[in-house]
Amino acid sequence: MSFSFEYTYPINNSRARLGKITTPHGVIETPAFIFCATKAAIKGLTPAQMKEAGTQIILANTYHLMIQPGAELIKEMGGLHRFMGWQGPMLTDSGGFQIFSLGHGSVAQEIKGNRNNTITNKSLVNITEEGAIFKSYLDGKKILLTPEKSIEVQRNLGVDLIVVLDECTPFHVDKAYTRKSMEMSHRWATRSYEEFKRYDNGSQSLYGIIQGGIYDDLRKESCDFVNQQPFFGHAIGGSLGANKEQMSSVIEMTTNSLDSKRPIHLLGIGGIQDIINGVNHGIDTFDCVHPTRIARHGGALVRGGDENGRDHINLYNSKYKLDQNPIEDNCHCYSCRNFSRSYLRHLLKAQELLAIQLITMHNVHFMNKLMHDIRAMLRAKTHNLDLLHEVAV
Amino acid sequence: MSFSFEYTYPINNSRARLGKITTPHGVIETPAFIFCATKAAIKGLTPAQMKEAGTQIILANTYHLMIQPGAELIKEMGGLHRFMGWQGPMLTDSGGFQIFSLGHGSVAQEIKGNRNNTITNKSLVNITEEGAIFKSYLDGKKILLTPEKSIEVQRNLGVDLIVVLDECTPFHVDKAYTRKSMEMSHRWATRSYEEFKRYDNGSQSLYGIIQGGIYDDLRKESCDFVNQQPFFGHAIGGSLGANKEQMSSVIEMTTNSLDSKRPIHLLGIGGIQDIINGVNHGIDTFDCVHPTRIARHGGALVRGGDENGRDHINLYNSKYKLDQNPIEDNCHCYSCRNFSRSYLRHLLKAQELLAIQLITMHNVHFMNKLMHDIRAMLRAKTHNLDLLHEVAV
Repeated sequence: MSFSFEYTYPINNSRARLGKITTPHGVIETPAFIFCATKAAIKGLTPAQMKEAGTQIILANTYHLMIQPGAELIKEMGGLHRFMGWQGPMLTDSGGFQIFSLGHGSVAQEIKGNRNNTITNKSLVNITEEGAIFKSYLDGKKILLTPEKSIEVQRNLGVDLIVVLDECTPFHVDKAYTRKSMEMSHRWATRSYEEFKRYDNGSQSLYGIIQGGIYDDLRKESCDFVNQQPFFGHAIGGSLGANKEQMSSVIEMTTNSLDSKRPIHLLGIGGIQDIINGVNHGIDTFDCVHPTRIARHGGALVRGGDENGRDHINLYNSKYKLDQNPIEDNCHCYSCRNFSRSYLRHLLKAQELLAIQLITMHNVHFMNKLMHDIRAMLRAKTHNLDLLHEVAV
Repeated sequence: MSFSFEYTYPINNSRARLGKITTPHGVIETPAFIFCATKAAIKGLTPAQMKEAGTQIILANTYHLMIQPGAELIKEMGGLHRFMGWQGPMLTDSGGFQIFSLGHGSVAQEIKGNRNNTITNKSLVNITEEGAIFKSYLDGKKILLTPEKSIEVQRNLGVDLIVVLDECTPFHVDKAYTRKSMEMSHRWATRSYEEFKRYDNGSQSLYGIIQGGIYDDLRKESCDFVNQQPFFGHAIGGSLGANKEQMSSVIEMTTNSLDSKRPIHLLGIGGIQDIINGVNHGIDTFDCVHPTRIARHGGALVRGGDENGRDHINLYNSKYKLDQNPIEDNCHCYSCRNFSRSYLRHLLKAQELLAIQLITMHNVHFMNKLMHDIRAMLRAKTHNLDLLHEVAV
């Protein structure tokens, strides 16, 4: 069998665990972070640089790729692995998150506990039992995404781990809507699995998604549902609440109800403290644009964060003008081995492309090193939550 | 002594020669191409990637760096080599080209044989015997650049090969102006050398510049002048005429009059055919933004050029949509080993940063391979102009 999941469980008094997800493109040691190659490219880094920075797995977005350049084209070019030159394990999402994020407003902020009701975009046209109709970000053309279509697109992209289509409910909807939406997502999950099974040749594995918003009983019901389906893994989706505390509590109640024999992915979460809390509650993999996105705005991740409690320093800051130090003294990434904060600040001010490349490289290395250190701590079985927090400082 | 120039001369019936310029940061095998790291960075590539693509030497622009981040800052950070993490040989220009290019209008196009009289920018305020006053591109502040100041800035930058300040005369000025300007450039060259000599500790070598526009007698006079000065090398500057034929003829008469014991640089020329003609006339080094600039617009250099006689293909073209081939079949660069034209076109259309990085990487490798093949041909002593042209197809 090409796919498997092994794990040690539990470690001390937490649900934290070490694991290994085996895929046709290699093994992912968990807990692991998944980097976002949204449009079939990490913004600014080559696959070789991602590998050199210790990356195990990346993801690409079905929503973006089905519109540009199209999944059929990628299939014709030999699949996503070959198209983009990445040989390691890869995941694609279902496309649902982007469609509903754009349609409902800023879902992305809401599920991370930053409530914001502003609806900024009307690209989502309609949601029915059949699927979701949305407007293409390229030409405004209406596109229907059904569970079957999402699986077909992901089959054409051909990566290892794929995900069922769900409706990603935002925070601002009420419990009645959340229940109704969750129940439809369950039906969509069943349809996704049936479509997946029709052509399953062992080269891909399917993740189910847990919905239910911030409601204990709904999350429990959703966990019971996915546990009974023959999914390879589970991904926690939907709103995780209005703040960090609520997020932690939603994750805890969810992982407590999930089949522990399957890998658990937390969708769209990449803050350092959120990752550490997630690991403590039994999350195996995380993904987020955070490390690569902040790099494009001069943000470089540092252990312990900055003096304002953020997880990164802003290299545009004039205090780095004459700073001969690398981003981090003990970092072994290419950027830190070769360049000063002063130089990186100059590149940012001069709008040189190389700035993005070098800071992204550091942030990717940083995340991989963080996950490596977390695994080392779990391996030493010295784990407890306080020690895990020390990893980040 | 840290600097030296050895060469074989002549090869067959041309002035083409193989050479070695030794600097404190390593040897440059000539003929060689110098890539432009204008603001202390190759746009989109790391020093490691430049090295991997076979690069021997890069240059940075005094004009840009004296304004941002300032030469004193770079000196304080340990000099340009350390600041930007490039360990190989490096050259800085005098700043004159940019000042006069911006002031006189499109000098860059004119010296390459594309006459254009439009004056588009008035950043050059005044030229006097003392120097040139221009407005900073950042804040409009007036700056006086004298020969002494240019050398001081280049001393602070601290790279291996530096250049005297000259007035870069455009094509559209008459012979009287060209003579007057050339004579002032000669006085500026003497002042540059005197300033250079005051602090010379053997870590830098100075190039003189030949002016004289398209006029045989003036070029001859300028050659006689620089030959008599104790410069390490010579650079051919100013207008090279209205078209490719005139450029070839100006270069030929100039190199015929130059001291052959010194390396000869041709400023700002990087077209494939122009390089081959230049080598044939005894040029040792070339620089141009062409290979890196066209990459940012989807232009990938290919041997033999495209069907319209250009030296590159445009990867935005829809005919590459399903093209599984690399940019060049026999190219061993990282891009060609890993990515199809179809993928590169997708990255361009999706405005992914990685497009620039991968195409630039190819173009840099292409230029280095071209120069490598030219040297191999000269080494085999089979050189003649026809054979040299075959290198490019």
